[in-house]
Amino acid sequence: MNFKIRAAKKEDCKDISRMIMELAVYVKMPDQVKISHEELQRDGFCQNPFFECLVAEIPEEHKSKEGFTVVGYALYFYTYSTWKGSTVYLEDLYVMSEFRGNGIGTGLLSKVAEVAKKKKQCVQLQLSVFDWNTPSRDFYAAKGAQDLTDTEGWHFIRFDGQNLDNLANEAPKD
Amino acid sequence: MNFKIRAAKKEDCKDISRMIMELAVYVKMPDQVKISHEELQRDGFCQNPFFECLVAEIPEEHKSKEGFTVVGYALYFYTYSTWKGSTVYLEDLYVMSEFRGNGIGTGLLSKVAEVAKKKKQCVQLQLSVFDWNTPSRDFYAAKGAQDLTDTEGWHFIRFDGQNLDNLANEAPKD
Repeated sequence: MNFKIRAAKKEDCKDISRMIMELAVYVKMPDQVKISHEELQRDGFCQNPFFECLVAEIPEEHKSKEGFTVVGYALYFYTYSTWKGSTVYLEDLYVMSEFRGNGIGTGLLSKVAEVAKKKKQCVQLQLSVFDWNTPSRDFYAAKGAQDLTDTEGWHFIRFDGQNLDNLANEAPKD
Repeated sequence: MNFKIRAAKKEDCKDISRMIMELAVYVKMPDQVKISHEELQRDGFCQNPFFECLVAEIPEEHKSKEGFTVVGYALYFYTYSTWKGSTVYLEDLYVMSEFRGNGIGTGLLSKVAEVAKKKKQCVQLQLSVFDWNTPSRDFYAAKGAQDLTDTEGWHFIRFDGQNLDNLANEAPKD
């Protein structure tokens, strides 16, 4: 199947927002999504955007059952390793289930790698997956990725809500 | 002990670079450090910096055995959750061993939380630790952080070197 990978535009945020929810349903955490398409527009299409995004588009004649032609996305941003330097972090990679198996996921992933190397000279691409998500883990492993939680024992830590407020309130005054 | 937390300046990069290496030695990976202080200066003190950094400074009369007064740092950047929105990621938090137990680590951590909430309305603070690093894991847990690898099964994945080049070379042409 023909598809095109292109930079997301502000007008794509409704499609991206829809697919963020589809991905959250796939990973069994739909109630975690608090971000609307208006917030995506504000945060991703401003002076200093928080993220960049690619979308995968298919021809009108192959549109999804519901009539969608934007059928996948990769949302990413630039981070930094104090050991290795500039890094790209792939927050989300998603292809609608009826369009999987056509190389769209690989297209999105490889395009992120290409953009990050060209634009920011990134030396690493990082991302996170759930341990139960064998299809995704196998997909990345097949392309040569290392699982750093398995090999080096990295754990993910988060502060949010009241815990984050408490921390901030504890900050020394200038 | 008196200490001051302040935004890092370009001139601090030698101290930060020294402490990056000290931290890498502490986590038993000194050979992983490929970044020099010149690269930190370039990447952190340019038009669109890859990171921000706070340093902890002590009075001259309390300087370290080697004569240092910059004795800790917190290096962080802004990321994005498609579920929750703007997030701050704490890449490194370090206090020189002879100055631990004085609240400097808590001062740095809480200041990052405060800056991130004020400047970017961040709703989460995230970081990573090694599974064997019990002192750090206990430190964060005591302040209310969740370990998402334990509770939700998140794994860290990385492409680098030839694997990243291969990915980028696979990207569909425009």
